[in-house]
Amino acid sequence: MKALLFDVFGTLVDWRTCIAREARDGLGPLGAVLDWLAFADAWRAQYQPAMEEVRSGQRPFSKLDVLHRRNLDVVLDAFGLGSVDEDVRVRLNLAWHRLDSWPDVRAGLHRLRKRYWLAPCSNGNISLMVDLARRNDFPWDAILGAEIAHDYKPQLSVYRAAAAAFDCAPGEATMVAAHSSDLAAAHRAGLRTAFIARPDEHGPGTGERSASVPVDHSASSLVALADQLGC
Amino acid sequence: MKALLFDVFGTLVDWRTCIAREARDGLGPLGAVLDWLAFADAWRAQYQPAMEEVRSGQRPFSKLDVLHRRNLDVVLDAFGLGSVDEDVRVRLNLAWHRLDSWPDVRAGLHRLRKRYWLAPCSNGNISLMVDLARRNDFPWDAILGAEIAHDYKPQLSVYRAAAAAFDCAPGEATMVAAHSSDLAAAHRAGLRTAFIARPDEHGPGTGERSASVPVDHSASSLVALADQLGC
Repeated sequence: MKALLFDVFGTLVDWRTCIAREARDGLGPLGAVLDWLAFADAWRAQYQPAMEEVRSGQRPFSKLDVLHRRNLDVVLDAFGLGSVDEDVRVRLNLAWHRLDSWPDVRAGLHRLRKRYWLAPCSNGNISLMVDLARRNDFPWDAILGAEIAHDYKPQLSVYRAAAAAFDCAPGEATMVAAHSSDLAAAHRAGLRTAFIARPDEHGPGTGERSASVPVDHSASSLVALADQLGC
Repeated sequence: MKALLFDVFGTLVDWRTCIAREARDGLGPLGAVLDWLAFADAWRAQYQPAMEEVRSGQRPFSKLDVLHRRNLDVVLDAFGLGSVDEDVRVRLNLAWHRLDSWPDVRAGLHRLRKRYWLAPCSNGNISLMVDLARRNDFPWDAILGAEIAHDYKPQLSVYRAAAAAFDCAPGEATMVAAHSSDLAAAHRAGLRTAFIARPDEHGPGTGERSASVPVDHSASSLVALADQLGC
């Protein structure tokens, strides 16, 4: 095993409370009063359908920032905020670039990097990954994932392109994620798998506590994974 | 200006003396006695013709490691070393992953990174760039260049793909290189340009001392460039 590839939204960063904070900070001053966590959940709910249009070939590949923007416009309308102006939308759309990591991530990644090559294998675009890395001190060796593969997970080509960029046979790379569906696809692509429990991802106690598919490793945090891997 | 994109071979790393060292270390124990710098020059001389086959559409894109290996086989034959076995060839081909940087590079990049996003925009593949970064402590935000663009510099698409990955309009990115031809192409692609003098690249006093095309910045080292850019 040579490389670790990481899911990012949910696995490394707490998108839900951060998007709620960013929405409140961006829209609250305009007089909007709403359930900011519900707004975050509604925006995120548009995520898979938007990517499915790309995966199914209905739309050409575009960066996740572009999909997020289209989804934001839908969600603003749904919350009765259709009059929000362009500048506010542009800034709010970049909320996904300003997410904070779970508390174990920075220390865990820095330990894992001593032994393995590390990269995100996320559906987020390269610039989004760079902003998150700079904000949270993620020590990536490269930025891999959807924008390299020109398709979205769980398409198997995304996992395989990430491993290949690191000169790894699929079995020499381990996909690390908090979602069984991501790990099941990585396994089908030939990668090894590591589950990280993020039970609070969708609100306290609502996330996956353990993988629902067979995995090679399972840990409660990246620090615990580093312990298991002897890093 | 938001991002700096770097040529690597010659601009950041001293390929010639390092390849000579690696060839001596790899082939000397087999009894080969030859001019190791001439061997390095001969291997490098195959570089542009091999990429030209890709740029012209004669061959599909493949990683530079693959082109280097084909070229190595040609050069070994030319030096009367056609009997060298596969294991030695595989290891020697990775010599390009074991190049050392010019003495100013590490300090210069770390200063420049405080203000700008940094990435290689090299013809070297991602894994090659990661090995050089780990060896020399290059603090990249991402690995961009030929493997992302699926073509080789000086095709304009390579510079434009690198800028686009960083969400830059071409004019928001500066290409940094020791070769006027690289900077001329970057300029045609709409990027800004910075020349770094590496007069010893091809042997003492043989490299470009100043750019032969108009450039936006010109410096004797990356530390000098950081001074000019106020980093």
